[in-house]
Amino acid sequence: MHASDFTATAPLACDLLVRADAVITQDDERRVLTDAGVAVADGLVLEVGDYADLDARYEPVQRLDMAGRMLLPGLVNGHTHLPMTLLRGFADDLPLMDWLQEHIWPVEAQLDEELLGIGARLGCAELIRTGCTAFLNGYFHEHVTGEAASACGLRAVLGEGFFAFPSPFFPTAEACWETIRTLQARFADDPLVRTAVTPHAAFTVPPELLEASYELAESLDIPWQTHLAESPTETSVCLGKYGMRPVEILRTRGLLSPRVTLHHCVDVDEREIARLAASGANVVHNPASNLKLCSGMSPVQDLLDAGVNVGLGTDGASSNNQLNMFRDMGLAALVGKVRHGDASAVGAQTALDMATRNSARCLGWPELGRIEAGYPADMIALDLSSPNLMPVFNHVSHAVYAATGMEVCMTMVAGEVLYLYGEFRTLDVGGLRREAARAAKWVRRASGK
Amino acid sequence: MHASDFTATAPLACDLLVRADAVITQDDERRVLTDAGVAVADGLVLEVGDYADLDARYEPVQRLDMAGRMLLPGLVNGHTHLPMTLLRGFADDLPLMDWLQEHIWPVEAQLDEELLGIGARLGCAELIRTGCTAFLNGYFHEHVTGEAASACGLRAVLGEGFFAFPSPFFPTAEACWETIRTLQARFADDPLVRTAVTPHAAFTVPPELLEASYELAESLDIPWQTHLAESPTETSVCLGKYGMRPVEILRTRGLLSPRVTLHHCVDVDEREIARLAASGANVVHNPASNLKLCSGMSPVQDLLDAGVNVGLGTDGASSNNQLNMFRDMGLAALVGKVRHGDASAVGAQTALDMATRNSARCLGWPELGRIEAGYPADMIALDLSSPNLMPVFNHVSHAVYAATGMEVCMTMVAGEVLYLYGEFRTLDVGGLRREAARAAKWVRRASGK
Repeated sequence: MHASDFTATAPLACDLLVRADAVITQDDERRVLTDAGVAVADGLVLEVGDYADLDARYEPVQRLDMAGRMLLPGLVNGHTHLPMTLLRGFADDLPLMDWLQEHIWPVEAQLDEELLGIGARLGCAELIRTGCTAFLNGYFHEHVTGEAASACGLRAVLGEGFFAFPSPFFPTAEACWETIRTLQARFADDPLVRTAVTPHAAFTVPPELLEASYELAESLDIPWQTHLAESPTETSVCLGKYGMRPVEILRTRGLLSPRVTLHHCVDVDEREIARLAASGANVVHNPASNLKLCSGMSPVQDLLDAGVNVGLGTDGASSNNQLNMFRDMGLAALVGKVRHGDASAVGAQTALDMATRNSARCLGWPELGRIEAGYPADMIALDLSSPNLMPVFNHVSHAVYAATGMEVCMTMVAGEVLYLYGEFRTLDVGGLRREAARAAKWVRRASGK
Repeated sequence: MHASDFTATAPLACDLLVRADAVITQDDERRVLTDAGVAVADGLVLEVGDYADLDARYEPVQRLDMAGRMLLPGLVNGHTHLPMTLLRGFADDLPLMDWLQEHIWPVEAQLDEELLGIGARLGCAELIRTGCTAFLNGYFHEHVTGEAASACGLRAVLGEGFFAFPSPFFPTAEACWETIRTLQARFADDPLVRTAVTPHAAFTVPPELLEASYELAESLDIPWQTHLAESPTETSVCLGKYGMRPVEILRTRGLLSPRVTLHHCVDVDEREIARLAASGANVVHNPASNLKLCSGMSPVQDLLDAGVNVGLGTDGASSNNQLNMFRDMGLAALVGKVRHGDASAVGAQTALDMATRNSARCLGWPELGRIEAGYPADMIALDLSSPNLMPVFNHVSHAVYAATGMEVCMTMVAGEVLYLYGEFRTLDVGGLRREAARAAKWVRRASGK
């Protein structure tokens, strides 16, 4: 019983009222509500609670009946290279250096903005289809990915990548910094698109440039991200070049802070884990990519236990070969157990936290990754009539262990439905398929295969 | 150009002509045909080849246009416990013994045939949905699973499990053998259902009973399967009880032969691998289950290199939590690389072989797992319009690394279509969902949770 049973209360206005069998809120108490509803207005969640109660009190402009489905926060992909989706399955089962030098880099060097755009839109289609609503990117010509994300309604943090200077893209550091400033200005009025400073890695970018780029990130007050400690091979290269392991290179330059997001951190030792934790730096775990390129298994539970914020990412489709956060959630939980010799390591709730709230912090966008009053209305629905989600004992277990990601039947960002029961509302997937087929022919020719 | 361009040839009859963008044949040459067709008659493949050519020569009773899709052989699940699908997500993130003794066994002991039937049908629904057309089972009251499989058109090899005697099910060994003989007789006229002798494991069944049961398998000329070397813990138990490691227990009793299928083989050393190879015994790899229960990572590539036939299985849904062979194919390839420290270990073609031809041999049904003239018409189609399967460079790579299993849009066994674009033709999935929900309530009550 609530107030309206006794008094004539004017109904509350909202844009949208969503009904679902269950809502995994990912709020601070990690509540899972059943027979629940979510009221949305102006792109934000107004209220989450019992559906019958919300239904009695709200008068929505629109309704979305997700009975037989469960809602989750939109997943947040902490690390990807969206345009590389064009190279999905182009070269597999190869060691990292051979894969990069013989197959990926020669083709990448020839990609123009049109081809990058096809790859970026293809990536957006897969993210939307598999319930991801925001991502942290790293690549070149990042305005292309920014435009793709903005056009299809996804949230993106763009990372214009750089190595040393002069490079084919950037003759000087100042030219690179200018490109990053331009990128930020270009999307300044777009609520969906942000920017991060993105040196490639500690073994490819000289320490003084890492430091200079970090100062840029501070001056623009945006995140600073880099690949770090991806494999023992990288550690050897760093030791050879600088006499320091990757984490030490950053630490000695003062480049570990809450502004920082480090991708991979597979080869980190106990002392480095403690230092990462003390610094407040964020880590993104990429289990599929780490396995496929044989980089190793990150000590995820140790990082979490030490207090590090660990998000989750897919890495690029060419080293995964999916951009499906459900697959990487499952992998994080499964592989984490064997990595730590403990069947309770990286449990289902932990993996879901990594893919939502933790990844959101890695993007510098901590208000994402939950369904809670006052927070952005980024939500997805999983169809519980899929045989692999029956019966239901534990909704969180199903999201992490039983779902493939293809049970996603609705994807919403800021209250806008981008995908509903097979219909992409912001993308022409049929046209994209034809573009992708043409682009693949071009890639085959360019690679001489 | 072919003969019909020049001469008036009478068209060839067939029941069904399937057209697809590509056919992954899994024949001896591992050919992948594009713009291809498959002619089917009497449940067998008559011919595989260029579609235009087949179309010109055949006059089919029915046509199935799978343009925009690729065909694969139906996947073969080498190890599962189908009725346990009822306990999917009931208990997670627990060590094996706690999981079994505190959660699974107390509920299992109370399951009746009605509940087991719901679990078995639920499992069948998921297998059909994710493109699996045959499976090797192990559980109790196996006629229940046999009837479920037969009713929905799946191929099954039933394994009535047993431990020592007397047990709640079997007061004597002879009673158990009689049940196995009855099971075999019951399905003797069903082309879809076969039987295997199934002692639980070398650490739970005394060696003399293993030996006696093997003699039964020989006398009935059916496969003999058991769990073996699943974890270092099991090895310790065997060493403590018998002074021998699991493989040695079987070897010294003469229980390694091509009739034998061993599930898991995670904890096997170099000498044991050589002995398994020399014996012709088959191994089934279950990567998801081995990770989730923290059993370890099997040396799959070493087994394969030694010449062991290694198939692939999901294990039961309660320790996976899926029955999705696409997930386990991807895991076999990904985890195999880190297990062996080699990015080329367990490549995509190898993983697909494991899930098709190799698993078929583990079932004692070697004619399954390929699309080839004269072999059973067990086929599946993957929808290439799913964004995660674009673009296409390599069909086998997509099947193993990029597909989730939910791209399956057609599942066929012996020429009969069981599933087509969301429609289950042999199962009432809506009714099953209601039954599963009721059964889950029962399980919660029975477990006192």
